[in-house]
Amino acid sequence: MARLFRSTQQFGNVLGRCRTHACAATPRRSPVEHWWLFGLCSHKLHTVADGPKSCPAAAPGRLPFSTVTPDDLDFFRKILPGRTITDPDLLQSSNVDWLKTVKGSSEVLLRPRTTEDVSQILRYCNRRNLAVNPQGGNTGLVGGSVPVYDEIIVSTALMNNILSFDSVSGILTCQAGCVLENLTLYLEERDYIMPLDLGAKGSCQIGGNVSTNAGGLRLLRYGSLHGTVLGLEVVLADGRVLDCLSTLRKDNTGYDLKQLFIGSEGTLGVITAVSILCPRKPKSVNVVFLGCETFEQLLQTFQLCRGMLGEILSAFEFLDSECMRLLNTHLKLPNPISDCHFYIVIETSGSDPRHDGEKLHNFLEEAMTSSLVNDGTVATEESKAKTLWSMRERVTEALTHDGYTYKYDISLPVDRIYQLVTDMREHLGDKAKSVVGYGHVGDGNLHLNITSPTKDPEVLAAIEPFVYEWTASCQGSISAEHGLGLKKRNYIYYSKPRQAVALMSDIKAMLDPKGILNPYKTLPDNLK
Amino acid sequence: MARLFRSTQQFGNVLGRCRTHACAATPRRSPVEHWWLFGLCSHKLHTVADGPKSCPAAAPGRLPFSTVTPDDLDFFRKILPGRTITDPDLLQSSNVDWLKTVKGSSEVLLRPRTTEDVSQILRYCNRRNLAVNPQGGNTGLVGGSVPVYDEIIVSTALMNNILSFDSVSGILTCQAGCVLENLTLYLEERDYIMPLDLGAKGSCQIGGNVSTNAGGLRLLRYGSLHGTVLGLEVVLADGRVLDCLSTLRKDNTGYDLKQLFIGSEGTLGVITAVSILCPRKPKSVNVVFLGCETFEQLLQTFQLCRGMLGEILSAFEFLDSECMRLLNTHLKLPNPISDCHFYIVIETSGSDPRHDGEKLHNFLEEAMTSSLVNDGTVATEESKAKTLWSMRERVTEALTHDGYTYKYDISLPVDRIYQLVTDMREHLGDKAKSVVGYGHVGDGNLHLNITSPTKDPEVLAAIEPFVYEWTASCQGSISAEHGLGLKKRNYIYYSKPRQAVALMSDIKAMLDPKGILNPYKTLPDNLK
Repeated sequence: MARLFRSTQQFGNVLGRCRTHACAATPRRSPVEHWWLFGLCSHKLHTVADGPKSCPAAAPGRLPFSTVTPDDLDFFRKILPGRTITDPDLLQSSNVDWLKTVKGSSEVLLRPRTTEDVSQILRYCNRRNLAVNPQGGNTGLVGGSVPVYDEIIVSTALMNNILSFDSVSGILTCQAGCVLENLTLYLEERDYIMPLDLGAKGSCQIGGNVSTNAGGLRLLRYGSLHGTVLGLEVVLADGRVLDCLSTLRKDNTGYDLKQLFIGSEGTLGVITAVSILCPRKPKSVNVVFLGCETFEQLLQTFQLCRGMLGEILSAFEFLDSECMRLLNTHLKLPNPISDCHFYIVIETSGSDPRHDGEKLHNFLEEAMTSSLVNDGTVATEESKAKTLWSMRERVTEALTHDGYTYKYDISLPVDRIYQLVTDMREHLGDKAKSVVGYGHVGDGNLHLNITSPTKDPEVLAAIEPFVYEWTASCQGSISAEHGLGLKKRNYIYYSKPRQAVALMSDIKAMLDPKGILNPYKTLPDNLK
Repeated sequence: MARLFRSTQQFGNVLGRCRTHACAATPRRSPVEHWWLFGLCSHKLHTVADGPKSCPAAAPGRLPFSTVTPDDLDFFRKILPGRTITDPDLLQSSNVDWLKTVKGSSEVLLRPRTTEDVSQILRYCNRRNLAVNPQGGNTGLVGGSVPVYDEIIVSTALMNNILSFDSVSGILTCQAGCVLENLTLYLEERDYIMPLDLGAKGSCQIGGNVSTNAGGLRLLRYGSLHGTVLGLEVVLADGRVLDCLSTLRKDNTGYDLKQLFIGSEGTLGVITAVSILCPRKPKSVNVVFLGCETFEQLLQTFQLCRGMLGEILSAFEFLDSECMRLLNTHLKLPNPISDCHFYIVIETSGSDPRHDGEKLHNFLEEAMTSSLVNDGTVATEESKAKTLWSMRERVTEALTHDGYTYKYDISLPVDRIYQLVTDMREHLGDKAKSVVGYGHVGDGNLHLNITSPTKDPEVLAAIEPFVYEWTASCQGSISAEHGLGLKKRNYIYYSKPRQAVALMSDIKAMLDPKGILNPYKTLPDNLK
């Protein structure tokens, strides 16, 4: 074991950890800035029976909503004194997404503090036919979190109070604007953790996490938000407050309405408070970084790991050698082990450090003896574990330095997930600068990313619809965890049948008949 | 340890296990048969603004659906030759619920084999305005699974094929009529288990489990069906087939429609197929039966258990000394330990027998040293573990022998769950024969059961609305896992605000405009 698994000491102090996509404390260059959705593409979409054909990510024409008048501003200033922002400089960062590929032109940002504030805003906007863009931490990757035109931005940033925490049951209730990392810190002091963890934790808000049904790094262990969210308070389009803020693990009284708002990207209501079931903080956490030569070996390692680590396995992530190259080149992160084709990050968390250590030891010995892995290193201390995690978490950041990034977030049967990367590489040939694959093996979730020096319609045309057709041929999902937002809305038919999309449209019409909530997002244009 | 924890050998062979509520192999006397819902109570309900006042469990008047004609029967016989049942003797058991408190008068039972069969049936019934009662294993406890009047019974019993199983991901896809226990046996051969387990496993069907969002004995460990069900195929009221039968762990493409049908008790659509994420079969299972003197000690034992057993804890159930008395008296089950006020059933399941044993040993030593528990016994062998489990699982059966049973399935903050039993006992005085409490401590779920020699309106009037008001005052749920069905539909306002119920009604109207699917169930009368 000693031969194979080096100490992390050698690189433990070299690397910082990017705790968030947009963390101000982490110096980073801006991603390449091309407002391509508003430049190269036509605003009008021509769709056909089996789905849209050309530039379906582009924004459709502005819908006939009202525009904000001085009277409207007077109203907002009256109910939100000092929290009705119209200064263009202050609005700028709220008008553009983190990837800087979608830019709106909103002239008003509202910062409610209470559910009643949100209710008043929506009641007014609905009456006046003013479109609204609900905004959390604005860390989304599909253009769902920013206005497309002049929608009024309703930010939940000031709704950041923890409402209650029950230390017996582990049930946390808080306002929607609480930043995920702050909740994590609050809980850790009380011997609990959040059931989800994301690279964007330093900026993303729990309301946005729930609205987008965020997956992240702990889904393998703690399951999806559809299971862990116990209650929601939601303001509907007309200002009605829907109180489903239950703090019970079980409640079978009528339809489970809160589920409608989990993952609907702010198009059906604005989530104002969340109650969520939190797991106990594990007493022992280990992180392992391994290298394999083939993806087949990686999958066999996953199977071995599930059998031998069982209930203490909390993450099984991977990145390929191309990701490692970008981490080395753009972020100067050294490879903690020798060069391999595939790298695995395994996390265990459990209640007994000795038992966890033994399980891990036995697993690693078996993986090594059976030649599934070529090299590896283990971290038991938190700082070293974070350093290893950063190899996985900072791939997104490294990509932004490599060029214009075409991002795909695909769910597939687990044995197919890397074939798509290989096929895409072959398909694109030298058209692309980099074609990389990483993601959550345990969830069957591949992040396929392709870069080119600048935004290139020819590259895009080569990637799409190839990537979607390939995914659909395996009954995969074209958006595993990022959602559809603006950019992917018209691709929905690759993963959902027409009957299902029609029903979604009926639900939208029922809950938001004027369509004021986050327009141009989630649902395809041809239904609007 | 040896002093306290006796071997289960002494009673291991004495007890059989009731594997199902309605298992034919388990001799049992019939529950007291009083068709009280159709006898003592008026069919017309008078409801007021804050909820119904009198006899709200009674059936409302028959809604103006069509009645079945010879032409209708011709149609059904044509599409379901040999599977259109009109023999009154054969229909009898499908017209009455397991508790024998609700009895319908349906004259037709249809037994489709395929989704297309169900689609044709519903398309026809919707056009003809014929009401339909979807029926699975008919093990429900709130009168949701049987017709109220002459609704056509559509049984999923013949839709019992397993469609696929992926042994890498553990994702099972099957038709809705598969019996839970059969799925469990199928999976165990493949080193997996179902994520849910119920006393009724020998009869209940997975489609019914999902339709009622069944909780059961493993929820503490594996979470609710909202998290583990990955996909559903549903036939809507008008016969349209909604294919959401995804087999992916992650899919954020549009609204998660399947969630609408989980727990909506067949009122929004008929589930015809399910895909579900199954956990690995644990390599080691231990069951412990403990006795405590006070409920406070029981709760402290729960907290200790969560901390020390951590990730291997898979169930924490309780029963009180009154339950034990009924088990002794009616089923002749001997108490495996000395007499105590409260009994706990703890199950652990994990991947390493030695580690699990050590964790359990340490926990038991601590619980004993700190005088939290008075007596106990441990089972590691499967047959003995089943024997201990039967003490918990057969309480429902014992109650049916004690007299007419008033059943309540309540969710509460965990530290309040036994107070309701104590308060109810005091409140009823000698009006009741027995007042017993048992249930899922880990989920905050109390099963409060009261018996009287025969059905007695005076006892009922003393129990209700007292039990619901008590529950509402703690923000509890008046139906944790049983659903609302016919019997509890009008109590919904005790757990859900008016706005939420109104939205449920909108959803029902959208999906089933004629209201043909499982009428008189789930939603309160005043909305229909």
